Amino acid sequence: MQPNETRLRVRYAETDQMGVVYYANYFVWMEIGRVELCRSNGLRYRDLEERAGILLAVAEANCRYLAPARYDEEVAIHTSLGSANPRMVRFAYDLRSTESGKLLARGFTLHVFLSREMKPVKLPLEYRPMFGIV
Amino acid sequence: MQPNETRLRVRYAETDQMGVVYYANYFVWMEIGRVELCRSNGLRYRDLEERAGILLAVAEANCRYLAPARYDEEVAIHTSLGSANPRMVRFAYDLRSTESGKLLARGFTLHVFLSREMKPVKLPLEYRPMFGIV
Amino acid sequence: MQPNETRLRVRYAETDQMGVVYYANYFVWMEIGRVELCRSNGLRYRDLEERAGILLAVAEANCRYLAPARYDEEVAIHTSLGSANPRMVRFAYDLRSTESGKLLARGFTLHVFLSREMKPVKLPLEYRPMFGIV
Amino acid sequence: MQPNETRLRVRYAETDQMGVVYYANYFVWMEIGRVELCRSNGLRYRDLEERAGILLAVAEANCRYLAPARYDEEVAIHTSLGSANPRMVRFAYDLRSTESGKLLARGFTLHVFLSREMKPVKLPLEYRPMFGIV
Repeated sequence: MQPNETRLRVRYAETDQMGVVYYANYFVWMEIGRVELCRSNGLRYRDLEERAGILLAVAEANCRYLAPARYDEEVAIHTSLGSANPRMVRFAYDLRSTESGKLLARGFTLHVFLSREMKPVKLPLEYRPMFGIV
Repeated sequence: MQPNETRLRVRYAETDQMGVVYYANYFVWMEIGRVELCRSNGLRYRDLEERAGILLAVAEANCRYLAPARYDEEVAIHTSLGSANPRMVRFAYDLRSTESGKLLARGFTLHVFLSREMKPVKLPLEYRPMFGIV
Repeated sequence: MQPNETRLRVRYAETDQMGVVYYANYFVWMEIGRVELCRSNGLRYRDLEERAGILLAVAEANCRYLAPARYDEEVAIHTSLGSANPRMVRFAYDLRSTESGKLLARGFTLHVFLSREMKPVKLPLEYRPMFGIV
Repeated sequence: MQPNETRLRVRYAETDQMGVVYYANYFVWMEIGRVELCRSNGLRYRDLEERAGILLAVAEANCRYLAPARYDEEVAIHTSLGSANPRMVRFAYDLRSTESGKLLARGFTLHVFLSREMKPVKLPLEYRPMFGIV
């Protein structure tokens, strides 16, 4: 997968009384990043779930916060595929302010492939090349 | 159904940069209120969904905001059953600060009963008495 | 103010276990709608707050839900200015699926102007024309 | 600080269409855990912010997800103080289902002390003993 950059504007709902974005919301943004990474590489996450019956369950999530994001700011999410094998996939994220170019946060998520019954499964063969799994 | 009062403490995540609770979160609290109203009257909402296959979809939601709720404050949600018929049910909510007794907000939600396939259905007979439907 | 239409894509985080968008999130979308309505009419809501020290506190919010919004769907928020006077302003919202054109929800919010100290104030004269207040 | 255990019930709003709790919400729960850890050790986080003007900004957050949490389930958050120095503090979290006793997730957050102007500061002397800083 080629890395993807997608942009969003900070919502009022995403701030907290510290006047900056509440820390859990960065993980919502990472979700947007990986969905758009997949889409820009020809894979609609919705189809993976609906057609292949494969869920990408989060096994680990991490974020380091470097500078606060503020209301109405535009944030660019740079998402790239990390290591992947038939059971797991890892995504890496850089979040920047588009105005200042400043790095706001850096994180990763690790996912396991699950069936609709929430059991670990191997990613079907047809989807492996997309994830660079040979 | 006998009215219910349940309490919660305002989360940091629920505030916004105005320093008060973000307005959409009051609807999350109303959901807690109606679930606890049902529970205190012997009906677990989860069972309604899992066993009877009945979803309570929101058809309308309204809130009037009278005083701001603040971080770490304890809020009491007073929930009562309004009108109900085999197709719809209405709940009414009063939200108060337990410390000051001040009324923070007042609202209602109107729900329709849906099947798992998201089609309008009549509430099964066995659940009607709970909702005061004769 | 000329009505505005802005678009967003439904986030996974915004769905619930019913498989559709959780009802409180429509109010987050309305906030996006009114911010973009202001922006497209030359008023940055952030400036109103930071420069003029005016907060737009929600006094009432209402939504009627007509059809469920689903994950990854694109939603168009059509926002228009309703009645306004130096103390209050009302916005109206229509939310549609851009793919099907179907009306998903319709709502309004009523706001009072507050000072930074959360006291009701009259909107400063310079901002009144924007809101059509004469 | 003595470790603390606090409990919450999973809200419908916290689930996603996978039928389990959305992964970002565990970080909201961790916030509840550390606030209650402080409270049970005699420190109201709100006072730290309002009186001492000290903000506990998140510098890093991590969660490993071991089993899914489900709607209406009761979750116990076990929070303990990790390492601390005048500039930083670390909290560790174990989240369990109270019914099954199963470990759902394990995480940590690392925080820096900031002034109201969002500048790194040393924790005032009077608060250090609470954090075990000598």
